[in-house]
Amino acid sequence: MPPFEFTVTHRDSETKARTGVLRTPHGTVETPVFMPVGTLGTVKGLTHEELEQLGVEIVLANTYHLYLRPGEGVIRELGGLHRFMSWERAILTDSGGYQVFSMRALRDVTDEGVRFRSHLDGSLHFLTPERAVEIQGSFGSDILMPLDECTEFPAGAVTAEKATERTLAWAERSQDAWRHLTDGNGQAARGALFGIVQGGTYRELRRRCAGRLVEMGFAGYAIGGLSVGEARPLTMEMVAVTEECLPAEKPRYVMGVGLPEDLPQYVALGVDMMDCVLPTRNGRNGCLFTSQGQLHIRHARFARDPRPLDESCACPVCRRYSRAYLRHLFVSGEILGKILNTLHNVYFYLDTMRRMRQTIQAGDFTRFSSEFRSRLQGEVP
Amino acid sequence: MPPFEFTVTHRDSETKARTGVLRTPHGTVETPVFMPVGTLGTVKGLTHEELEQLGVEIVLANTYHLYLRPGEGVIRELGGLHRFMSWERAILTDSGGYQVFSMRALRDVTDEGVRFRSHLDGSLHFLTPERAVEIQGSFGSDILMPLDECTEFPAGAVTAEKATERTLAWAERSQDAWRHLTDGNGQAARGALFGIVQGGTYRELRRRCAGRLVEMGFAGYAIGGLSVGEARPLTMEMVAVTEECLPAEKPRYVMGVGLPEDLPQYVALGVDMMDCVLPTRNGRNGCLFTSQGQLHIRHARFARDPRPLDESCACPVCRRYSRAYLRHLFVSGEILGKILNTLHNVYFYLDTMRRMRQTIQAGDFTRFSSEFRSRLQGEVP
Repeated sequence: MPPFEFTVTHRDSETKARTGVLRTPHGTVETPVFMPVGTLGTVKGLTHEELEQLGVEIVLANTYHLYLRPGEGVIRELGGLHRFMSWERAILTDSGGYQVFSMRALRDVTDEGVRFRSHLDGSLHFLTPERAVEIQGSFGSDILMPLDECTEFPAGAVTAEKATERTLAWAERSQDAWRHLTDGNGQAARGALFGIVQGGTYRELRRRCAGRLVEMGFAGYAIGGLSVGEARPLTMEMVAVTEECLPAEKPRYVMGVGLPEDLPQYVALGVDMMDCVLPTRNGRNGCLFTSQGQLHIRHARFARDPRPLDESCACPVCRRYSRAYLRHLFVSGEILGKILNTLHNVYFYLDTMRRMRQTIQAGDFTRFSSEFRSRLQGEVP
Repeated sequence: MPPFEFTVTHRDSETKARTGVLRTPHGTVETPVFMPVGTLGTVKGLTHEELEQLGVEIVLANTYHLYLRPGEGVIRELGGLHRFMSWERAILTDSGGYQVFSMRALRDVTDEGVRFRSHLDGSLHFLTPERAVEIQGSFGSDILMPLDECTEFPAGAVTAEKATERTLAWAERSQDAWRHLTDGNGQAARGALFGIVQGGTYRELRRRCAGRLVEMGFAGYAIGGLSVGEARPLTMEMVAVTEECLPAEKPRYVMGVGLPEDLPQYVALGVDMMDCVLPTRNGRNGCLFTSQGQLHIRHARFARDPRPLDESCACPVCRRYSRAYLRHLFVSGEILGKILNTLHNVYFYLDTMRRMRQTIQAGDFTRFSSEFRSRLQGEVP
């Protein structure tokens, strides 16, 4: 049995939505899946036990951050990222590219790779496609992402094309590095390398990039460089254009999205995997996602409100705590406020994905999607 | 069946240590007990579920802090502190006196009560013995503490005597207020009011204060004004002197103590209840209590240490996580670091109390106490 395998289990008849099972070296993942972000090897605010109870089957971790702290050597010496974190389920790591490209003043890009300064201590580092694969190999990631060049929005056609071509060249080098690593070390490196489609907001670039990556052949395909400031319809168009070029039997992953109301739209376009810091970051900031829309728990109108955050939510927070108590915790700056808000938000995302999987299987996805999205337009009572 | 009752179940033959059961309106509490501090209605860093899984049967909450935020009215309107917090087990509240007396610049004491300014917004408040009881009655506390006057260490004999006499006069007024409240409202106010023995470090004052409180007759007796800077042997002497004046059939509570190595000493002097911010506050600051002594997780020597915090600890943290991971979380400022450190420390305190209860019942307390204390002198390996 191969350590990494994707099987589509159901297809929606009205949209491109589908359910599937991703088999990884660290357990199976039901798709469409939302992956909570665990930047430094922890999903901020939650214990691993809470993640397990929520049904989280895969988390995302950031190579850039973990490479700087605690460092590749510590993680390797402790037996890889799973053992370092004491997390036995699947882990996807990004390549570090997105973080490095976000630090415009601190980096210098050539065809060879990216030279950058640590945001922690200013130390100088050089990241190449080969190193990004090697680091993620040390981590023992279940899904590895290749180094890519992200452009800002808006990016001119020449800039976008250059970045796309560099991304393609780097994808090839990443694939070589990964083959070299896995040939020599079949046991330690059992994860799967994905390709990343770039191309800015240019249909032709997206198609060209996807086509070339598919020729190279990856275990899955990510769509990167979106949700960086462009209007949502344009994001969706780029996803749709790209999806048409990708093989149906491989998983598709849209990186860094999205708002709850966007999730069914991505799924309807055939997306299998998503990640985003919104449920965790907004949770810590007191912005809560509910079936009626967003709720800012700091508002004075919740000070004496005995109701749960969301009457129709079955999460551990909504089953036990009142808005009044959650507001009190938040305005008092208590850690428990951050914990409970994060728990609720992550549950809300996971529950939304679960409902989508169920309704796709039941042939009821379009109805679910439109009801879910229309409820989110309302005012939280 | 009375809503509040204390039964001594075992007595140690070599010391004054004893086990007991405290029956409260919100469940029974096995003593000797350590009460985690939940200042603002939350034990900082832990969920209620975690507290329950740790076996916490009673928490302490601070009247001063809750009175200011979210306020007595909000808590009353939400149905009392238990319902506001969604915590069904027992709660002991202090009177607010300790916090008010700690703010020297912001308060003004007369025989009538204490005028003070809020540390949050500077608003002016007046706390009397009657108000302190009334507020705790609104909270629905299982154990209420009367307003008392704490002196600093060292305090002159005249100052200490004046504070003791005022504490006694306030105890009487508190008792009257509590009787008035419970006579008129038997259902809502089912908790028990304790007396607080003051007297600084003066044996005679301690004896006088204890004797007069016992004449008044309280459901339990607290020993206050200790662990405020005096040497540990003096603390223990004051506890011993006071204990001799207290009735054997009532619970004794030493307020605001202590370090792990002190716990068996207090228990050996006949103390049934303790509370302290150390396990939670030190946990957040990365100072961990283990069976071998204190461990500062930020130290570089733990960066690659795959061992648990404490090899002989069965807590959820030691069963799962390495020192290397805990250090990484701490130096990265991750919330999970604070959570796990607090979880371990609170477990360590509760486990120590559990072992004391077991060894008292097994006639083995003195051996346990001396082994426990001698191990704590060592260097954490």
